[in-house]
Order: sequence, then C-alpha cells, then structure tokens
Amino acid sequence: MTERNSGQKIVGLAPHRQSSFYGRDIVSVRQFGREDLAYIVSVADEMRGIVKRVGATDLLKGHVLANLFYEPSTRTSSSFIAAMERLGGSVIPIHGVQYSSVSKGESLPDTIRTLECYADVIVLRHPEVGASEVAARYCSKPVISAGDGVGEHPTQGLLDLYTIYTELGRLDGLHVAMVGDLHNGRTVHSLARLMQLYDTRFSFVSPESLRLPADIKEALEGAGRVVVETDRVEEVIDQVDVLYVTRVQKERFADLSMYEAAKDYYVITPELMSGAKAKMALLHPLPRVGEIHYDVDSDPRAAYFRQMENGMYIRMALLAAVLGKA
Amino acid sequence: MTERNSGQKIVGLAPHRQSSFYGRDIVSVRQFGREDLAYIVSVADEMRGIVKRVGATDLLKGHVLANLFYEPSTRTSSSFIAAMERLGGSVIPIHGVQYSSVSKGESLPDTIRTLECYADVIVLRHPEVGASEVAARYCSKPVISAGDGVGEHPTQGLLDLYTIYTELGRLDGLHVAMVGDLHNGRTVHSLARLMQLYDTRFSFVSPESLRLPADIKEALEGAGRVVVETDRVEEVIDQVDVLYVTRVQKERFADLSMYEAAKDYYVITPELMSGAKAKMALLHPLPRVGEIHYDVDSDPRAAYFRQMENGMYIRMALLAAVLGKA
Amino acid sequence: MTERNSGQKIVGLAPHRQSSFYGRDIVSVRQFGREDLAYIVSVADEMRGIVKRVGATDLLKGHVLANLFYEPSTRTSSSFIAAMERLGGSVIPIHGVQYSSVSKGESLPDTIRTLECYADVIVLRHPEVGASEVAARYCSKPVISAGDGVGEHPTQGLLDLYTIYTELGRLDGLHVAMVGDLHNGRTVHSLARLMQLYDTRFSFVSPESLRLPADIKEALEGAGRVVVETDRVEEVIDQVDVLYVTRVQKERFADLSMYEAAKDYYVITPELMSGAKAKMALLHPLPRVGEIHYDVDSDPRAAYFRQMENGMYIRMALLAAVLGKA
Repeated sequence: MTERNSGQKIVGLAPHRQSSFYGRDIVSVRQFGREDLAYIVSVADEMRGIVKRVGATDLLKGHVLANLFYEPSTRTSSSFIAAMERLGGSVIPIHGVQYSSVSKGESLPDTIRTLECYADVIVLRHPEVGASEVAARYCSKPVISAGDGVGEHPTQGLLDLYTIYTELGRLDGLHVAMVGDLHNGRTVHSLARLMQLYDTRFSFVSPESLRLPADIKEALEGAGRVVVETDRVEEVIDQVDVLYVTRVQKERFADLSMYEAAKDYYVITPELMSGAKAKMALLHPLPRVGEIHYDVDSDPRAAYFRQMENGMYIRMALLAAVLGKA
Repeated sequence: MTERNSGQKIVGLAPHRQSSFYGRDIVSVRQFGREDLAYIVSVADEMRGIVKRVGATDLLKGHVLANLFYEPSTRTSSSFIAAMERLGGSVIPIHGVQYSSVSKGESLPDTIRTLECYADVIVLRHPEVGASEVAARYCSKPVISAGDGVGEHPTQGLLDLYTIYTELGRLDGLHVAMVGDLHNGRTVHSLARLMQLYDTRFSFVSPESLRLPADIKEALEGAGRVVVETDRVEEVIDQVDVLYVTRVQKERFADLSMYEAAKDYYVITPELMSGAKAKMALLHPLPRVGEIHYDVDSDPRAAYFRQMENGMYIRMALLAAVLGKA
Repeated sequence: MTERNSGQKIVGLAPHRQSSFYGRDIVSVRQFGREDLAYIVSVADEMRGIVKRVGATDLLKGHVLANLFYEPSTRTSSSFIAAMERLGGSVIPIHGVQYSSVSKGESLPDTIRTLECYADVIVLRHPEVGASEVAARYCSKPVISAGDGVGEHPTQGLLDLYTIYTELGRLDGLHVAMVGDLHNGRTVHSLARLMQLYDTRFSFVSPESLRLPADIKEALEGAGRVVVETDRVEEVIDQVDVLYVTRVQKERFADLSMYEAAKDYYVITPELMSGAKAKMALLHPLPRVGEIHYDVDSDPRAAYFRQMENGMYIRMALLAAVLGKA
C-alpha cells in the first residue's frame, strides 16, 4: 500500500482489484478479489506480530472510531474496540441506541452524518439488511459493517478466511465442509462467497430443509467449484480440511420431530473428530450452544478460539487500511 | 489565559468577566459575558485547527472525564467523548445509570463526590432542572452541564453561537430568526440569552400558543434589542442572517387542528430557501424529524452538520479551559 | 517485586506467601497473607503518589482491560475504568450483557475465553457466587473479581483495609466495630477476614437477627481475636478506632416493628460522633441511604469519600501487579 488514492472516499462497491483500501468502506464480501484478500491477510499477519511482540502500536494514535451498535453484539463490538485500542486509537462506544434520542425518529443518514463530525471511521451493526450500504453512501468517512440483519457480516467472513489461512497455510486446494443451518446462516454465505475465489471443494452438510440458497450454490458451480450436499457429517469428516460448524436453531424447523431427529447429526464430538484428518481445522463463529462438545476444546484442531483472536487482527488490519495507515 | 487562579474551584455563578476558566463549572449561559465568549470562540478555533491539521493533541493526556448521563443522549454524549479523546484524555462512560446501583436511592451529591475521586472533570446530563448546579456545588472538580431537564443546555448555546460566528464572520449586527416551539425549546432560550449580549435583531416565529416566554422577551427588550413575533417564516425569510429551526412537537398543542393548520409553516423547503439571502445560515440543533426537508441539505447555507462538528470544538475548548490547559 | 515468575499464570488459590502477583487472579480475600497485603498497600501508596503528582502514568500503555459486568455497578466499574486509564491502559467496557448475545445461552467459560483473545486482564462482576473462580480457571489471563453475588468482593475488602491503614497509620492493635446487617453484608465478611490477620479487637453491632455468621465469628476467635457482639453503637463508640457502617435493609426484617425499633440505633449522627475518639475513622462502602447523616460529612474522621478514592489506588495497584508492572 505504498500508493494511495487522493484521500477521497470511493463510494459504493466500485471495482476493487487494487491494493489500496484507503478511504474505502467495508460493507460486503463481494467487494474483494484475491489480491485484496492477500493484502488483508498480510496486514493481519503484521498486526498479529505486533500484538504478540509488544501488545499494541501507535499507528492510529489520535484517531477516533464510532462503534455504533443498533443491536447488541458483545463479541463483535468488543473485538472492534480492542482492535482500535491496540492500534493506539480511541473509541466512542454507542450501544443500546434503541433507547436513545438518536433512534427517536432520526434517520440513519442523519445519525451517520452527525457521527462523522466526531469520528474518523464508523463501525455499524444494524438489524436491517442494506443499512451499511446506506450509511456508507451518506458518510464521508469510511464505514465498516459489523453485520446488518440477515444480510452481510463481511468482517466475520474475512476472519474466517484468515483463520483457514493461518491454520492450514494456504487457501487453494482445500476441501471445506460447512455444517448446520446453511439456509439462514450469514456467516456461511459470506465465507462461501470468499472461498469461491479459490480452488475449493465444498461440502454442505444440513437437513434437507436448511440447504444453502440456490443462488449461492449456482454461483459456486458457475465458478467451477465442486459442490456436494449431504445431511450427515460422518460422510465427509474423513476428507475435509476445514469443518465450519454453525448452529441449527430449533425454531427454524416447521416440524419439531425433524429437529429432534436431525440435531444429533450436527453435534461435533471427540468420537467424530477421531475420524478426521490429523491436519485440519474445526471452526465455529461462536457463540456455540451445544454444537461442539466441550471435550473437543482441547483437540489441537479445534481452532474456534484462535478464530476469535484472529477477528481482532483482521479488524486491526481493516481499521489501519481504511485509514491509510496499514 | 496566561494568568490562572490558584487551582481552587470558583463555586457557583460568581461574576465572570475574566478570561480564566480554570477550575470553573459550566452550568448556565448566564455565566458568560462577551469577553468570556470571545475567549471560548478563540479556543474553539484553535481546536478546529488542531483537528483539521493533525486530528488530535495530547493536551489532556492523563486526564479523565466522567461522562455521567442520567438520560440517554447519544449526540451530546458522543460529542463530549470525542472531544476528550481528541485532547488525548480518557473517558469513564456512565450511561443508563437509571438501571444501576448509583440511582438506587443514592443522592446526586454522593454520586458526584464519588466520581470526583476518579475523574478530573464531570459532564452531567440529568432530567431535573438545577441538577448541574447542585452537582457543581458539591464537586471539587469542574462540572460541565450537558443539559438538565427543560432548564439549561449551555454547551448547546455555545456551539450555536460559535456556528453563527464561523458561518457569518461576526456576532454583532445580525438578524436572527428562531422558528418552532419557542415556549419549550431550551436551545432557543439559551441562544437567545447569549445573542442578547450582541447587537442582534430577533424575529420569533411560532404559533401563538408556542411563543417565547415573557421573561426572556422582556430581558431582550430591556437590553435594547428589537424583538418581533410572527407566525409565518415567509414574513422574515428574506431578511434574516440566521434561521434557527427547532421542532414543533404535536403533543404541545391542546387543539390538534391547530397543529395540522400550523405545522407546514414550519417546514423549511428548497422553495422557502430560494427567498433567503445568498449569505445566511440555516441552523438546527438536531435531531430533526421533518422540520427541514432533506433536499435542503445540499444548500451551502444549510449549516446544521457543520454545527454538529462545531459542538466537538466547543466541548474541546471547554474541557481544556476548565482543566487549565487552553 | 523484583523477582517475577515465568509469566505462566498461577491458577486457583495456591499458597500466596510470596510478593509476586504477576499473572495471578484476584478472586478472594482468602488468598492474601500479611506479606501480600503489605505489598499491595505499598504499591497503592505509589499509585496515590503518581496520581497526586502527575495524574497518570504510562505503566500499562498498550494493555487492554475487559471490564465485564453482568450486573450494574457504576461505582466499582467506574473505579476500575479510571484505574486502568490512569495507568495509561485502555478499557473494553462491557455492561448490560444481560441484553446481549453473550448471555444468549453462551457459557461463562466461552465468554471468558473469547474476551481473553482481546484483553490482557479481565475484571468480572457476576451475580452468581463462585463465578470469578470459574472464570479464573478457564482464563489464561489474570481475572480480577469485582464481586460475585453474595460471595466475595475482594477489591472492596482491600480498599477498606488500605483506608484503615492510611487513616490510622497502622493495621495492628486496632479496635474495629462493624455496624449494620452483619449477616448478609459481604463487605463486612471480607474486611473481617482480612483484619483477622492483624491484632484486632472486633465489635459487631447489629440487631439480634442480623448477627455475623457463626463460621466467620468462630474463625476470628480461633485466630485468637477478641469478639464482642452488641446491638447498640453507643456501647462501643467511645472505644473504637474504626467504625465500619453498612446498610440495615428493611426487607431483611421478618417483623417490621423490629426494624422500626432498631433502625435509629444504626444511624450515625454528629451527636453520636461527639462521643467518639478524636482520632478514629468512620467508614462506609457506599452507597449510603440514610445510615450516616449528611451533617457528619464535614467531620474530619468521616473517611468514606477518601475510601472511594483509595478504591482507585488499590485497583491501580492490582492491575499493575497482575500484569507484572508494579
């Protein structure tokens, strides 16, 4: 990132096959090409190195992040706060806005245009799909989405990808299985879209009723990827390099007897892991509520807490990059 | 501010025709004379310069602000947090205290005397009129009011004044029109009291039932200011240098048909603005809920988002001044 | 603390007659011996000196504290935030977690293992007894309890002890009277356990129904301490060096007439204080709700606000110590 743009923000989702992130919004995984991802991964690696060696840096000293959460998300919010603080910057924590005057009839654009007066970068979590793109359109400072409704959660996708890279040393040539509610899980959709850029073999493991949406499956196949769907983890466990587990929520089943019949297929146990490759990575976006047995935690292939840690490095990388300091 | 007092706090609302703010409370617009305001404006200008050039400073490094909000106000609270952080200081954010042990029967003086043990300066938002003065009386550290009930909101008055100065280059000789609910609007009252110190011509635009309180009107006239009251913006739009718009709240009308008849007179549209002077400033304390049409936002005279930004500079100036670092 | 351990955390409540706190958890007053307490007191004294002279230090620059409060406690939470900030560190403030995804079924160990990815030290307030020890067991970073349910509140005990030391200049040979609800008050229990390590004479003043739990009384007597129980402050006021007052909560009385009869014995007034020694210390953990009359505040022996301030120094000392920077 030695060459930077003029400082003007690039609005929207312009073509992004360039290495500069300075002034850009992060609102969708769709905006990244392989070159972008290689860049983010390398910056995240640098951030990890800094934190491991000295804990923090002064890269963003004097910079202010407005951390605007319209719905609670302790995990994501804490990760962004820690990222900004370890970069030497400061945070305006804005949580519980549902109770405040900001939400008393004020439009999102007005709120954003107010916060851009105080902050250098805005992180936004919002319950409505598309809110981040609206915010980005009105904001002269970079906006980073921290998830909008059932839509996108791009930084989660990036940290998942980064974890695959750090656990396995590469992104091409991997067999990635995704397990759980593939129909509704936005983290699954984001990661699938990112891994589509690589030479990936996909296995999607879910009950019939919670299969991956057709458009995502078609996009993967259109890009020449092998896609297999199954309803049993046992069928793929011995072949996969990455097992990405998500929740199967009871309330998604019209027929509860189907839930009761299905749910045990989707619990990862030490027995199940005994059939997996010696070198593979077990991921979960967390929080888990029973999908991975606690006895699996001590398995060296259980990468979900390292995945959490990687979330901080990815967010450090993104904050530094969009503020032109990476 | 080369000469400072001994470090002892000046309690209450002592005479203030002095340039030193060190150790003082900011609880009322009534405490300021022209000299004080000139000083605050000049420090705010410096703060703007610092932020524009380098983003932040270390003036208040090692200083701690307790940001104590008994009622939610994302805008004001965020502005104070950003101000303290851009001065290099730290913040104890205390929001939602209505749910906490602090409010479980503990008196405001006890809460304040506890927080002064941790912080160097306290910002207080409280639903009760006079709470800031009570807090200031018990606190050995400076207290800055962030609004108490329908009473005062002095930093809003100061940022409004500063915006008029930055938009128009002067404070004397201006025609200021205030629009909306002039009876209940504390921002209107605060700004009127401040502009009374200057050679100002006032137009107050509101329905009959929402006129300015008599005591404020009499004070303005007693100070020799011209005061005109009307119920139509159209009657003054071509003459004013400043148009200060506030909400007309439906619930203030005893007779809803009067509200329906009146409300459209108080919406600022591009058409209305086409009749205004080429050089004037349109202000609003925000949030707006329909009083200014979104199409007006691109009008160069629309100053309300610059007004928000000025809020941060004014609060930086006040924090630095009361801590003796301006 | 010139010699430190290897950086590995000492899990649980291992024997602690050593001066190094580096990497340790602070979850119980039971983990401290006299040598530990002498060390904490001396570090707290240093912290007080730093704050009095220059306000803050950079000792913990680049370090991040996760301030995790499952129940509201403005006082304790603000004190920890201020302590970390005055040490140059940063804070992830996590309050109101009852509303957030963290609490949506996620286990405390998972939450803790997530936060340790972002932070260098975790402060935990939790409604359940023993939660801090559970958290400490799963956390590779130091955990400091900020109170768990009716169980322990070790930093309160330490700040009370430190206040006795700073007010009276010694910890041995004192007559300490504790007043109020001695049955339920965890601050009373913690302080009693700490003062048991010193040559202390104890008077416990409460209604019959709110006497000290038998096990604590027996432990004190087993350690050779003199213990007297009474239901009238008047009986001991002229002899005590420390009068530690706590709330008598109406709702603890089965018979309200007993409450009405009893409550006035437990209000400290100027008249009562006129019978006390010239040199003694009146303490209260705050908030008070009537137990100490406001007219007592100006009495030089009224030490409860200095006690609050000492809380910050003790927390600075603990944060610095467990992070190996004391």
